[in-house]
Amino acid sequence: MADDVLIVFTPSGRRGRFEKGTTVLQAGRQLGVDIDSVCGGRGLCGRCQVKVAEGDFAKHNIKSRADHVSPWNEVEQRYHEKSRKGVKPGRRLSCQARILDDVVVDVPADSQVHKQVVRKRPEVRDIVLDPAVRLHYVDVEQPDMHKPSGDLERLLKSLREQWDLTELEDADLRLLQNLQKALRDGAWKVTVAVHRGKRLTAVWPGFHDRAFGVAIDIGSTTIAAHLCDLASGEVLASNGIMNPQIRFGEDLMSRVSYVMMNPGGDAEMTAAVREAINDLIAETAEEAGVSPEEILNATFVGNPIMHHLLLGIDPTELGGAPFALATNSGMTLWAEELGVRIHPDARVYVLPCIAGHVGADTAGVVLSETPHLSDDIVLVVDVGTNAEIVLGSKDRLLAASSPTGPAFEGAQISSGQRAASGAIERVRIDPETLEPRFKVIGCDQWSNEPGFEKKVKRLGVTGICGSGIIEVLAEMYLAGIITPDGTIDGAMAAKSDRVQQDGRTWSYLLHAGEPEIRITQNDVRAIQLAKAALYAGTRLLMDHLGIESVDRIVLAGAFGAHIDVKYAMVLGLIPDCNLEKVTSAGNAAGTGARIALLNQKARDEIENVVRKIEKIETAVEPRFQAHFVEAMSFPHATAPYPMLRKAVPLPAPKKAAQPDGDEGGGRRRRRQRSRQQAE
Amino acid sequence: MADDVLIVFTPSGRRGRFEKGTTVLQAGRQLGVDIDSVCGGRGLCGRCQVKVAEGDFAKHNIKSRADHVSPWNEVEQRYHEKSRKGVKPGRRLSCQARILDDVVVDVPADSQVHKQVVRKRPEVRDIVLDPAVRLHYVDVEQPDMHKPSGDLERLLKSLREQWDLTELEDADLRLLQNLQKALRDGAWKVTVAVHRGKRLTAVWPGFHDRAFGVAIDIGSTTIAAHLCDLASGEVLASNGIMNPQIRFGEDLMSRVSYVMMNPGGDAEMTAAVREAINDLIAETAEEAGVSPEEILNATFVGNPIMHHLLLGIDPTELGGAPFALATNSGMTLWAEELGVRIHPDARVYVLPCIAGHVGADTAGVVLSETPHLSDDIVLVVDVGTNAEIVLGSKDRLLAASSPTGPAFEGAQISSGQRAASGAIERVRIDPETLEPRFKVIGCDQWSNEPGFEKKVKRLGVTGICGSGIIEVLAEMYLAGIITPDGTIDGAMAAKSDRVQQDGRTWSYLLHAGEPEIRITQNDVRAIQLAKAALYAGTRLLMDHLGIESVDRIVLAGAFGAHIDVKYAMVLGLIPDCNLEKVTSAGNAAGTGARIALLNQKARDEIENVVRKIEKIETAVEPRFQAHFVEAMSFPHATAPYPMLRKAVPLPAPKKAAQPDGDEGGGRRRRRQRSRQQAE
Repeated sequence: MADDVLIVFTPSGRRGRFEKGTTVLQAGRQLGVDIDSVCGGRGLCGRCQVKVAEGDFAKHNIKSRADHVSPWNEVEQRYHEKSRKGVKPGRRLSCQARILDDVVVDVPADSQVHKQVVRKRPEVRDIVLDPAVRLHYVDVEQPDMHKPSGDLERLLKSLREQWDLTELEDADLRLLQNLQKALRDGAWKVTVAVHRGKRLTAVWPGFHDRAFGVAIDIGSTTIAAHLCDLASGEVLASNGIMNPQIRFGEDLMSRVSYVMMNPGGDAEMTAAVREAINDLIAETAEEAGVSPEEILNATFVGNPIMHHLLLGIDPTELGGAPFALATNSGMTLWAEELGVRIHPDARVYVLPCIAGHVGADTAGVVLSETPHLSDDIVLVVDVGTNAEIVLGSKDRLLAASSPTGPAFEGAQISSGQRAASGAIERVRIDPETLEPRFKVIGCDQWSNEPGFEKKVKRLGVTGICGSGIIEVLAEMYLAGIITPDGTIDGAMAAKSDRVQQDGRTWSYLLHAGEPEIRITQNDVRAIQLAKAALYAGTRLLMDHLGIESVDRIVLAGAFGAHIDVKYAMVLGLIPDCNLEKVTSAGNAAGTGARIALLNQKARDEIENVVRKIEKIETAVEPRFQAHFVEAMSFPHATAPYPMLRKAVPLPAPKKAAQPDGDEGGGRRRRRQRSRQQAE
Repeated sequence: MADDVLIVFTPSGRRGRFEKGTTVLQAGRQLGVDIDSVCGGRGLCGRCQVKVAEGDFAKHNIKSRADHVSPWNEVEQRYHEKSRKGVKPGRRLSCQARILDDVVVDVPADSQVHKQVVRKRPEVRDIVLDPAVRLHYVDVEQPDMHKPSGDLERLLKSLREQWDLTELEDADLRLLQNLQKALRDGAWKVTVAVHRGKRLTAVWPGFHDRAFGVAIDIGSTTIAAHLCDLASGEVLASNGIMNPQIRFGEDLMSRVSYVMMNPGGDAEMTAAVREAINDLIAETAEEAGVSPEEILNATFVGNPIMHHLLLGIDPTELGGAPFALATNSGMTLWAEELGVRIHPDARVYVLPCIAGHVGADTAGVVLSETPHLSDDIVLVVDVGTNAEIVLGSKDRLLAASSPTGPAFEGAQISSGQRAASGAIERVRIDPETLEPRFKVIGCDQWSNEPGFEKKVKRLGVTGICGSGIIEVLAEMYLAGIITPDGTIDGAMAAKSDRVQQDGRTWSYLLHAGEPEIRITQNDVRAIQLAKAALYAGTRLLMDHLGIESVDRIVLAGAFGAHIDVKYAMVLGLIPDCNLEKVTSAGNAAGTGARIALLNQKARDEIENVVRKIEKIETAVEPRFQAHFVEAMSFPHATAPYPMLRKAVPLPAPKKAAQPDGDEGGGRRRRRQRSRQQAE
């Protein structure tokens, strides 16, 4: 055909011949090129912008020039003048530009439907944008008395025809109640929100281009929200708020106790958390200049008790063995069913819990850190009041939780406090003089640097936070102030008067101001108990997997983000590993919620993975207790930590090794392994 | 196999050999015999009762005896003593009786899952019981810490395994909120309600055997409810209530006008009708000894405006051309979405509307009268303020509505009243003396019979109802008091002083009491306009179908139930037909709602049929006006009514026939037919 012209799309490389005058968008669609559009090619949404390449493309045998497509028409001009963003320099609306001669057209990342939302950490997957809720602008056939059919049925028909939505089923009642007015107000053109390609959940007259989603991580202490633009995947605003359930109990178990002691206490806590979520959403939406009604989709993660309370399920069963979840499936609900004040027909997706102690927050961590896709064996640890532990690779994945208690968060520590201004977060101790220097949150200088005193005067030195405790204990151990078995060594009082008698035990004076900040023997014991629980849980999973070491470690959560992984390993919180292979993931649970928000297939993915994860209940494993006891020592009574020792010289043991050494443990593990292979 | 025994089930005739000791229920299930059970063979529900036949069954070569099954065991004894109904005489629980020797077992109708709910009228289908909501008693595996899974997931698994519910998907949130307590209170045995084999909607601890449904017909004037036992299909109570929307407007169009004039008027009317429905349900449930919470399913029919107002949709669009429905599909919703106070997770099914003027009530009529299955051509007419007309057979079905106005209901008639005590409902006029005799509602005697005066004294003779008007006009016409063109003939005053001058027209004094009841010229005109509209609508459908006569006529609705079909035909409300083939269906719309309640497949059936029905909009058919004018005469200006004339001698025409006779009409219709064939 003489009138045919060749078009080549980059970066996909898709190419084809089309009749002269075909729009670039049409050509792209027919070739299966990923070009975004909400308005369906009417020059209203500006999502389909492309770059017409200029130059000689020998490889394609094309001399491509800007005028090989038609010049700007009125529609394009109008869009450029009237819209908020306009057509970007050097770009064209692919729905208006018609191909006149052979041409090479580049589809920039932000014009693709399934664009990549880039994450900052190189070791994790980018998010492929594919939200559960999408907008479609559609022309609806007008009613005809002679062929009577409902407005809804004609809308569905138009959507199927114009958007190829073959799985479309039905619409929400509220949409039906608003539909006739919207169709007439919009002169038979409306925009609809479609949930998972199946169900209509909202309608607007005419063209509408705003759709937002919110990902929410309900922690026992803090609730965090990320408000995202569903078109770009961009986070528009993030916020946190205290979980008001704290007034019913600081930690999870005390909240469950509250429910057991107070009939109706679960409903109180459900109301409290939902109210806080609504406040948080309202605040975050306002910050982003978005109305809560424009939020069309939401995702939630949280530990099992937060998960149940959000859903209005009494969490009593999670308070004791056998820790039965009401459900371990992901759930899709109406926002209204949860009393979440966003668009009333917005859908809410709650990620699945994994087990009675391993919640939807861990499912979020898995979605973010993808251990189920890992070639090597990765340990993912999310430390909060409970530590959730996931271990394995693409071949096999295990999960458990371990009752670390709140010591890592600064609770149960004499001078402990939450990570806030004035809290000591970094500590170094001179091994010779035993003199400390430290940094506090809110001040860049070390305490021995000039200007520190002046700067810190305003903040005060108010206490020590979780990461500070880890560092000070590790430094005390490295300096010999604490023995490997966790005793503050009174003999060191001879070396420094910071080591002071404290009744029948000793303490270390970290800061002599007001308040005085000292590390007591009880503080050391609290951290020992917490870290032993964490290590024992990890070790148990390693036993189940039949391994002696892990290839990589990911520390998730706020605690993991702030501690120095070297010190965490010196204290034996985590097993031996190449320090370069230990990374921090930040709030991976919240990121998982965001991934599930931006990519609908991630929901199916995590539900699949969760089903396959092997759940280990630490509380009933007889070996847990033995592992716990061995893990009380710094870094460990029997594990040799060869890689750590290469990086950090550890003090020589001051006591003899435990009688039940590595040999015994090794034999047990080997037996375990052969049993598993036999099964 | 020597230990095998033969069992033959009647009436199905299914037979098979089973190991000695197999329960009769097990054998029946394996053979696909339809035996009911809620408890799944645990001797709790008593639904599976069978009769062991005694005698020599030569045909099967079996000598069957009662002791060819095992004797009563403790379970059966306990059920018989503790349950409300016990084991019926001569019957056994098939889940307890074990086959010991060759035996013939009869499954009585009331022990079948898909039992027939017999209808009184021989010409209609019985209802096969197959409700959308079924109860299943189930044993749920207890939680195991080592294989953690949600209580819901274990429940779903047990249901799939024990009840073969392969399409089971999910559960409502409220069920999930109640599930853990129900499972523990019931010692891991619960009963669940399953909607359409797919979704769990309610749970009770232990064994639960009460499930009810309600079918509701929302008329413009009256709302009717039938409360049914979903296990037996039995109607436990029926009730009616005035539609409180009457205060917004007597007829449909005045209600639409109310909405147009009063912003928010639609919401007012929605609230009013829902409140009335709730009152009606509460009253009906109380009468049947049922709690509204035990109603697990509801179905609704109503004309398009009632349908939209029930759903909370502004009916304005239905008030003018093109009469666009918001939807023409059947809808399944939560009771809570409609504010219907039954079980909050009960599902409500709203039958589909057919066209802007032909509603879900007509869909109900179709479901009840099954014209879509008819071999011969049937005309179904439901007369209310609008007449809905369905015409056709299994080959092709057409529907229309015709604006008859409220004259048939006694409105617009000088002495008209609703059908209530004291209303004249039957009239005979002596053609010689022109003296009338009549019957009033609430009294068995004719007015000329002894005892009438005394009996009627209490009631009074208060007015004339719809059926009375039809009879008196028909008798007046047959007696020559009214000419075929509808004029009360002043010449007849010479014969009887009941024919009295009334300004420029004449009237007929039917009853001289207090109040005086007379038939005025205006009354005759009102009925002429109504019947002409009805006939013209019918005639239009006959044109479309290309037929000159119908094989059968079904009159639906209260009006149809009370009029004498002969008189209806004498006046020309309906076309000529063998009078024996004209039947009355009563409240067929309500029956349709009941069928959809008791048989879930009926919902799919009616949705399919509705899609295929050809909808005719009378208002825009140019022929409608011509048909209307011809139909003003009694019985008709041009149609010859040969079958009617055979049964009832009609008076000779007093005027010449109209110039545009049957010839012309016939030609038009023939042209129409060939056009259709050509298409």
